[in-house]
Amino acid sequence: MIKPVGSDELQPLFVYDPDQHHELLREAKGLPSAVISSQAAGNAVMMGGGYFSPLKGYMTVADAVSVARTMKTADGMFFPVPVLCLLDKVDAIEGAGRIALRDPNLEENPILAVMDVERIETVSDEQMGLMTDKVYRTDDLKHPGVAAFNGQGRFAVSGPIQVLHFSYFQDDFPDTFRTAVEIRNEIAERGWSKIVAFQTRNPMHLAHEELCHMAMERLGCDGLVIHMLLGRLKPGDIPAPVRDAAIRKMVELYFPPNSAMVTGYGFDMLYAGPREAVLHAYFRQNMGATHFIIGRDHAGVGDYYGAFDAQSIFDEEVPKGALEIEIFKADHTAWSKKLGKVVMMREAPDHTKEDFVLLSGTKVREMLSEGIAPPEEFSRLEVARILIDYYRSAQ
Amino acid sequence: MIKPVGSDELQPLFVYDPDQHHELLREAKGLPSAVISSQAAGNAVMMGGGYFSPLKGYMTVADAVSVARTMKTADGMFFPVPVLCLLDKVDAIEGAGRIALRDPNLEENPILAVMDVERIETVSDEQMGLMTDKVYRTDDLKHPGVAAFNGQGRFAVSGPIQVLHFSYFQDDFPDTFRTAVEIRNEIAERGWSKIVAFQTRNPMHLAHEELCHMAMERLGCDGLVIHMLLGRLKPGDIPAPVRDAAIRKMVELYFPPNSAMVTGYGFDMLYAGPREAVLHAYFRQNMGATHFIIGRDHAGVGDYYGAFDAQSIFDEEVPKGALEIEIFKADHTAWSKKLGKVVMMREAPDHTKEDFVLLSGTKVREMLSEGIAPPEEFSRLEVARILIDYYRSAQ
Repeated sequence: MIKPVGSDELQPLFVYDPDQHHELLREAKGLPSAVISSQAAGNAVMMGGGYFSPLKGYMTVADAVSVARTMKTADGMFFPVPVLCLLDKVDAIEGAGRIALRDPNLEENPILAVMDVERIETVSDEQMGLMTDKVYRTDDLKHPGVAAFNGQGRFAVSGPIQVLHFSYFQDDFPDTFRTAVEIRNEIAERGWSKIVAFQTRNPMHLAHEELCHMAMERLGCDGLVIHMLLGRLKPGDIPAPVRDAAIRKMVELYFPPNSAMVTGYGFDMLYAGPREAVLHAYFRQNMGATHFIIGRDHAGVGDYYGAFDAQSIFDEEVPKGALEIEIFKADHTAWSKKLGKVVMMREAPDHTKEDFVLLSGTKVREMLSEGIAPPEEFSRLEVARILIDYYRSAQ
Repeated sequence: MIKPVGSDELQPLFVYDPDQHHELLREAKGLPSAVISSQAAGNAVMMGGGYFSPLKGYMTVADAVSVARTMKTADGMFFPVPVLCLLDKVDAIEGAGRIALRDPNLEENPILAVMDVERIETVSDEQMGLMTDKVYRTDDLKHPGVAAFNGQGRFAVSGPIQVLHFSYFQDDFPDTFRTAVEIRNEIAERGWSKIVAFQTRNPMHLAHEELCHMAMERLGCDGLVIHMLLGRLKPGDIPAPVRDAAIRKMVELYFPPNSAMVTGYGFDMLYAGPREAVLHAYFRQNMGATHFIIGRDHAGVGDYYGAFDAQSIFDEEVPKGALEIEIFKADHTAWSKKLGKVVMMREAPDHTKEDFVLLSGTKVREMLSEGIAPPEEFSRLEVARILIDYYRSAQ
């Protein structure tokens, strides 16, 4: 099995022993505490489940700036993006060696993790600016990732953590949320040796399904891990259970037995395009994938990134040997009317836009709401039916 | 795939839609509420995950008594044991149509479920006595199940529920806890058609491993679901992460790829022997198993049940056609010195006790604590190593 990044064994920071867990929670209730940002909470959940292994906790400012610049901490440890715990105010925890981190995304802010505080530092505007520029390749506050990052406080609290909860992800998505530990375990049980991971947040239409088939075939993979981002949805998005049902139906009908698993992880989108693609690849290696599909505009937003920047960064900026996982570089896929099958668009250079069956997301939603299944060149009928049922019942 | 008991589709009572979940939780906070018993909470968790499908909630006294007598509700619906919500006092919820049920097993008693109250009844001593006699086959209060059942209050609150949380099971065992929905999904993904389930709470030694192999081989199964009970441990028991690691190592080394999965469910032991065996079979069918292993003294305690009562009840008392899942009737297994392999003890009638490698639990714990691996006829060396590491580090 592929090794996790930077170590022989995965190092999840969740406290798995129930007795230790209870004891630590009891201790945590007596500690000075802070409600952390949603981003910091997402980081804790990812560290808890082993996705960010071998990180031991939140980075110091020096490490974060160094990571933003070079994807390496001051000590030379590879990591794709800064992992910070940025707070507005630190009066309540000043001087404390050990603190409890409270979850901003659940009512009553339950304890998410316990931290051994190494440092409390102030991040300068210059440092924030530098990190923003390097990670997001823009300082435009209209960029949702830039806005979210800069919307946090300016105190960076760093140090190792022990994680006690998986926030709302495990409660809201009990049948889909998986840790990197669990996915590794299941890959071992299934006996897969070459595993490609696919990132999604949406139901999968025929183009996505065929992209996965293509990747598996060309790479000779015996396993596919469909790995959904389970961050908060935008109004109008398909709710998780419907999305899950649609994807599971697709797997049941159109993938051979024991070739695909449907899972999810708890993290928000950064919309950091290329840098986020590297992070995505990083935690897919940690969960046991040997390959990762990166398509056009991966993790991008607006026009901030070139269509294939999220692919070229692996050749141009990721330190050599830092990642063992390999990237399957894809383009959009679509049904070719000329060829009568789904093709990767850049592999059909003689095609014009009109040669493909292309439908906008808005158009598809409109059709489904009216009870009309998109053409079978676009959507599997069985998948469309699940989505139509949802839109009809939601009206 | 095998159908769930009593319906075409599994009917989990957990509220899966995150928006509905949040809304219901908000509503629940304004409702009259009661902290329920640990048994009632276990029932809610099982109903939430689909294990008790198609039950819609807690039974009325009439249904519970009828189930205790005949394994059928007053309406003729099959269920193996009463599913009650027994409370000490009901002042706070009297007259309420809708109430919140609070978790007795987590600090601050968070909301576990919401209930539409159909009835609040008083259970008479006679009714308690009758249910105890029928379910446990004894009224001896030294029987831990009898004591726990009778230790509850005498007000039975019945009605349909919606489940909002999986109690401590999901938080304490994030990598092992599974709902019936999840196990069905995974069986479908793996493409298994004949699936045998194995009940355990302990690390598996060679005899258990071989029992599973035997069952798979004789039944022609392509899948094994190792399904651990995740109720509270007794002091001295192996902690969950160690037990999991030992079982996963066994699966990795001694089961072919894609032939076994390691999972767990959240429920306490009833120690109700035969009746509990029927319940065990019931929820294994719901999670998609076609076969279930029942050995000697299944779910028993002390000398309350005959060695094979938990097998014969399926022929003698379970209503014909109520369950589709089939029982694999086993005896203890052990290494035969004569034959040089693990055999089912009743299938070696010419053997005496001395012909087998038999070690008591106490003896095995003693050896492991001293860093001594039990003989290979008893324990796989790789499994023993994990247990020795644990005992040594715990000293």
